[in-house]
Amino acid sequence: MTTVSAIDREKGTAFLPRFDAQGLLIAIAVDSITREILMVAYMDEEALAKTRETGLAHFHSRSRGKLWLKGETSGHFLRVQETRVDCDQDALVMLVKPEGPACHTGATSCFYRKLEGEELAPIAG
Amino acid sequence: MTTVSAIDREKGTAFLPRFDAQGLLIAIAVDSITREILMVAYMDEEALAKTRETGLAHFHSRSRGKLWLKGETSGHFLRVQETRVDCDQDALVMLVKPEGPACHTGATSCFYRKLEGEELAPIAG
Repeated sequence: MTTVSAIDREKGTAFLPRFDAQGLLIAIAVDSITREILMVAYMDEEALAKTRETGLAHFHSRSRGKLWLKGETSGHFLRVQETRVDCDQDALVMLVKPEGPACHTGATSCFYRKLEGEELAPIAG
Repeated sequence: MTTVSAIDREKGTAFLPRFDAQGLLIAIAVDSITREILMVAYMDEEALAKTRETGLAHFHSRSRGKLWLKGETSGHFLRVQETRVDCDQDALVMLVKPEGPACHTGATSCFYRKLEGEELAPIAG
């Protein structure tokens, strides 16, 4: 077993993804052109491997307990163009080319509302 | 006990944050000017309440098991200017004014490296 220190993760050049106690890390998808945040979900080791192998974003569905190819039913795949890694390597930002609305509601982004007091209001544009 | 349906969460105007089995939701901080993703962490109910009350981003530290005011030691607070909510209300995007580098390494953003093959490379700019 190899021990990986916090310094290795922060300063090193090795990709050493840190999955949490549930075996997950956070993966944020951002439109590579508009830089809008499209969605956020979780990846386990399998989803990360499939994403890297295919270039299409895969996640781990916690509700269904299984691998989830984003777009598998809608055809709205997210093509990964660049993957960024945070300091402690437990979160990723993927710059993607979306092949349709990223949200299952039909919205471009899942973040289509903002908090105004106790209520939610649509985001203009 | 009130039952909240998926439709209420997706289409309604009520803020009904959905904490997971660990009592957490994902909170992403984005620079309100540059739109760069600065960091991502978790909020529990207490951290969300404190953030809304003070206008300063608070998180729940899973490693320390307690409330964490971002900037409490560094002074690099994140002033929340807008909070966006995703379709199923289990993730937030905060547009913030950072009062210093968001990353404890001194980087503007925690996402200062990208994946190139099996290695990590600095992000230019």
